[in-house]
Parts: sequence; structure tokens; C-alpha cells
Amino acid sequence: MKKLRLFTPGPCMIPEDVMLAMAHPIDHHRTADFRAMLQDVTEHLQWLMGTSGNCLTITGSGTCGAEAAIVSTMTSGHKALICRAGKFGERWGKVCDAFNIPNVKYELEWGLGFKSEGVAKMLDDNPDCDTVIVTHSETSTAAVSDVQAIAKLTRDRDMLLIVDGITAVGAIPVKMDEWGIDILITGSQKALMLPPGLGFVGVNDRAWARVDEGSTTTFYNNLKAYRKSMGNFDTPYTPNNVFVRGAQVVLHRLKEEGLENIWSRVAACAKATRQGAEAMGLSLFAKDPVDSVTAINVPDGIDEPKLRKTMRGKYGVQIAGGQDHIKGKVIRIGHMGYVDRFDALAALSALEFALIDQGYKMEPGAGVAAAQKVLVETLG
Amino acid sequence: MKKLRLFTPGPCMIPEDVMLAMAHPIDHHRTADFRAMLQDVTEHLQWLMGTSGNCLTITGSGTCGAEAAIVSTMTSGHKALICRAGKFGERWGKVCDAFNIPNVKYELEWGLGFKSEGVAKMLDDNPDCDTVIVTHSETSTAAVSDVQAIAKLTRDRDMLLIVDGITAVGAIPVKMDEWGIDILITGSQKALMLPPGLGFVGVNDRAWARVDEGSTTTFYNNLKAYRKSMGNFDTPYTPNNVFVRGAQVVLHRLKEEGLENIWSRVAACAKATRQGAEAMGLSLFAKDPVDSVTAINVPDGIDEPKLRKTMRGKYGVQIAGGQDHIKGKVIRIGHMGYVDRFDALAALSALEFALIDQGYKMEPGAGVAAAQKVLVETLG
Repeated sequence: MKKLRLFTPGPCMIPEDVMLAMAHPIDHHRTADFRAMLQDVTEHLQWLMGTSGNCLTITGSGTCGAEAAIVSTMTSGHKALICRAGKFGERWGKVCDAFNIPNVKYELEWGLGFKSEGVAKMLDDNPDCDTVIVTHSETSTAAVSDVQAIAKLTRDRDMLLIVDGITAVGAIPVKMDEWGIDILITGSQKALMLPPGLGFVGVNDRAWARVDEGSTTTFYNNLKAYRKSMGNFDTPYTPNNVFVRGAQVVLHRLKEEGLENIWSRVAACAKATRQGAEAMGLSLFAKDPVDSVTAINVPDGIDEPKLRKTMRGKYGVQIAGGQDHIKGKVIRIGHMGYVDRFDALAALSALEFALIDQGYKMEPGAGVAAAQKVLVETLG
Repeated sequence: MKKLRLFTPGPCMIPEDVMLAMAHPIDHHRTADFRAMLQDVTEHLQWLMGTSGNCLTITGSGTCGAEAAIVSTMTSGHKALICRAGKFGERWGKVCDAFNIPNVKYELEWGLGFKSEGVAKMLDDNPDCDTVIVTHSETSTAAVSDVQAIAKLTRDRDMLLIVDGITAVGAIPVKMDEWGIDILITGSQKALMLPPGLGFVGVNDRAWARVDEGSTTTFYNNLKAYRKSMGNFDTPYTPNNVFVRGAQVVLHRLKEEGLENIWSRVAACAKATRQGAEAMGLSLFAKDPVDSVTAINVPDGIDEPKLRKTMRGKYGVQIAGGQDHIKGKVIRIGHMGYVDRFDALAALSALEFALIDQGYKMEPGAGVAAAQKVLVETLG
């Protein structure tokens, strides 16, 4: 028997009832039933993001949602400070460059998170920047940035803050209104336990004021069009209404669990994985590790592609490798989505098996024992 | 008992096995399994579109795919002639305007299709246009344009032809290479019998040469990024891999049915609906009716919103109304997707019931009898 367990940092595992809800016979989207569904989804997204602002549902990947957010607010000669310390930070810079949006790149070594002090210094050096774009959880490096402090800074300086919360929202604490985030982006295939295909964008009034300043050189990814339709809980273009149905089921599940419980569950699985890995003699890649995904350095003498191939092929456990210059050097294990304490143990167990298969020296069980200890202490 | 039957011209009904295939446990997209799936989908799309060119799969609605096609080919000062006789023709003009792409609008009355003579005349009058954008099946009016003749014209004049085939591909004959279409766009939620959420774009070498001329002011909707990834049957951003799985099942079904059989089935259902409607004393909206969807004028004394409400609420049959200035004046019944001869009869039957409920004078059964006669003659 082989059972597939998906621990990639997106897509993430999906509850069975959500998959089956999406297999319900398809309906039309210009109906009262759909509008009621989208209204319910929107209100639950507001709860999840911690905002009384708009939460827009866009048919496309998370990158699509992020592009919409960036392009719609960066008209009229505004200039962005882009915090780059990984593949996604880099991507938002590429979006700005593609649309000729003025920007400055603030580079940190991969594995580090951004702190308010560093951002403040960069803003001092670049006084024409009036917008900060930061990735809360940098999926490619498994590092977390201090968005709460950065939000305080941008609010104090009256700047716009755009946060890529794609592997943060629904996994780690993110409080849009309380912290002062102006735009918060997430995607369906992460903590929201859906397949890839929807982007969600939270937009507060400060951000809308920006959107209204200029006219955007885009059509599909124009937040104005979504706002206009959202008055009736409608969408400007044909939405992926099947995933909206799934989102409704997922969001009700999450609401029932409660924000604090969700964050504790993810944090416990992450801590268990980190301490389990260290007990196996492994080291972490990120200096500022995030709880939604863990990046582990591949030890000397271990063939990384073979490791993941064994984990998938022999044990049915799919994790992710590294991207770009850390390809082959790290593995990444997600703790988001439909992942509970026992799944976290399974991922670590499969890693033990596959390492031992390659002759890695360790005491069998050391990893899962350390992880179990953390789980008992944190969730017990 | 109430059974929902969906006859909107998108989304369309989805085969049960396709819905269940999509409810399969989710997998990661950066895997050999996914690449094999996307390769299979791509080869089947080539078959469906009739092209040896690339067929790209984009996560987003059909509008997203169309924007990618238009924006990626209309760099470097090219100018488009946009054929507008309905909501979708209008939309492609709006896309051009949003991206500051030079264009001329060729307007025809709603309900008419475009012919090569009219396009030739417009091109004579606007010698700086070097691209034609035409909607094959204008979903909002149920009218068909003569894309085969327009393609001959654009090929003779060495111009680029971009065809919105969103409610054409997989429903009515469209032969990309044989006719000389350079870009052909479709969406998942029409004849492809999937939910909304994927756009498909066929691109030939002439179109790629255009793409390579300039640099596109866009990121997510940039065909270059998709081409680069498609070499390995990969995608530039996280794809809706669940719908790609569904697409594989659907495309195998369609291939088994065969193109000629698909076109005959849709044409027979359309003809049966048209003749059935006329036998009920109703008239058609489109002067050049297409086979993928039929628009019927609402007769005097009939309350259109109430008619559709009765059809959905009392009979479980969901059709579409008119858009913009024909709202309340027409109803639209789709013949695409998982619709067979008996479904076509059911749609007409429900229309009879709902009209009679409003006191419409007709001989009960006249519509379905006329439709059945057509079905026996065409499919029998």
C-alpha cells in the first residue's frame, strides 16, 4: 500500500470533504446562490486576515493576485522599496520592472528575514520611496520577516505597505488592521487548503485611495474592476466558482478551529520538525525560521534529488527541494494546510528512512522522538 | 426531486468522472507525473485546435488568456482592428485600451457576425492596422463570424489574426493551421467541460515572431514566460494542477468521440433548439446564429427575469439572460459541454413549461416535437 502525503509548501494537502464539495455538480456564477457564497467567503477572509477592508477573490495563481495588488497601487510615479531575500521577493521586483514601476531593491542574504531597522535605514537612504513591498514568509528560504514592526514603521512614515502573505495567512499570526498592513495577498493552495487557482487580496482604505489616484495599465489584474463587482458580491470576469465553493467549506473549518488554535498547530508542527531535524544531526537553512515551512540543509554525502525521489517513490512523502542557487542544497517541508501533528511526524519519519537508505549515520528514531517531545509539550 | 441542469454558455455541465478525477488527492506540480500530464493535455489541445504550434495552459479565466495573447503580441507599435459586435468583442477593445495598444474598432450591430468583405473594407480604410482580433462565437449575441474567410484575408495580407475561440473550440469547426489562425484562445468552462479557471492559448510561429519583436509590459500574462517553461511541460507560476488533471480526462473523452462527431452533436442540438423555438412561435436574436449557444428573443408580455427564475427554481434548468442593452430582451441556451440530445430536449421542454406558466399561448409539445424531428434527421 502506498499513500501520498504532500508536504510541499504549496500545493498543500486538502481535506477530503473540501475535494468532494468541489465535485458537486457545477452551477452558474451569476446567481443569488453564488453571490451568497462569495459574500460568506469574503466575510470569512476578513476574519482570517484581520481586516474590515475588502477581500477580493481573483481567479489566477497567487502571483496573479500579487501582480494585481502591485500594479493597481503603483500608478502615478510612486516608488517601491522591495525587500528581496528569496525567490518571491525577487518576483515582486520583476513585476515592478515588467510594468516600469520605479523601485529600489533591498537585498539580504537568503535565509534572513527583514527587520524594521534595516527597512528604516533603506528608506532613509532612498527618500523617494513611498511604498514597501515585503514577503512575510519567504517560501523559498523558509524565513520570516517582522511584518508587525515594519508595518509600524510604514504607518509612522505614512507609507503604503504591501505584504505578500502567501505562505503566512492562515498559518502564522498576521493582523492586517491591527498591525497596519495596507495590502495583504494570499493564495488558495497554501494554508487555505485548496488547489492552486485563486488569489486573495485584502485592501484597506489607504490602499484604495492609492488605486484611485491613477489609471492602471492593465485589465485583468485591475483591482478597480474587482471592487466595482464586489459591491454585489460578484466578479468582473468568470470566476473559478468551484474553488469558491471549496473556499467556503475550508473557511468554515478554519473558523471553527479558531485563529489561535491554527497558529498553535502550525507552530507546534514547525517546532517539532526543527527540533526533530536537529536531533537527527541536521541544520536549518533559515537564520530567521518561519513556522509555515522548514528548510533543512542537506548534509554532506547525501544526494538531494535521490533523497526526494526515495521519499516520494518508496515512502509516498512529497517534499520540496531548493530553488535557484540553493537547489540541491536544501529540502523544504511544509506545515500548512491539512497537516496535523501525526502528519508532521510522518514527514520526519520518512526523512529518517530516506537518509538511512543513503547510509546517513543517525540513531533511528532520534528525530521522531524529539519531535514527539515537542508535540507533547506544545499541544499536549 | 430536483435535478440542476446547467445550460449557461459557460460554465457548462461537467462529466461526473471529470469532477471525481479532480477530487483525487492533490499532488505537487513540479513532478514528472505532472509534466507527463501537461504534455498529454498539450498534445490533445493541439489536436483539438488543429495546430502543430504551442498550446499554452494559463491559470486564470478565458479573459486572462486573451489578455496574455493580445498584450504579448501587440508590442512595438502594432495596431489592431477589433471586430466588435457584442460584449466580448468590446472586452478585447478594452484590453487594448487599458494597455495603450493602438486600435481601431470595427462595430457591427449585435447579432451579426463578421465577414471577410467587411473586414477587408475596414483594413483598406485603416492601412496602418496589421492585426485583426475577432471573436469566433460571440457568446453575448450567439452570432458566428466567418473566421475561415477572415483568416484567408489576413494571411493574404500578411497580417496577424488573433481569434477569441472561447465558445468555439471544441464546439464548432475551428482549424487553426489549415485556416491560418495565428493565435487561438479558449477557456476551460465551455466546450472543454471543466470549471472556469484555465485559459488555453494556441500560438503559431508567426505569432511567436511577433512576441519576440518587443518586450511586453506585463508579467503574469506574458506568453514568453509560458513558452520558456513549456519546453519541459512545466509552467512559470503555480498552475491549477487539479484542473489540468480534469483537462486530461476531458480531452481523452473528446478525442474518443472525434472532432466531426463533436461538431455534429453540438450542431444538431443547436438546430433542434432553433427550430424548436421557432415552432413555439419564438424568434432568434442572432442574424448569423452560432451552434454553441442560441439566443432567443423574449416574446412580448413575458417577464424575462421571472422566466429564468421559474426555469431555475421550479424546473432546475439554468439558462442565461442577455447582457447590457439586450438584458431582459433575450435568453441564451448553451449547447456546449456535457450536453447531449436529451439535455437539449430538456432545456426546450423547461422553456415551454415556464412560458406556459406565464400564460404564453402555444400548443404544448410543439417545441420539443420540432426539436425531436431535427434530432432524428441529424443524429438518427
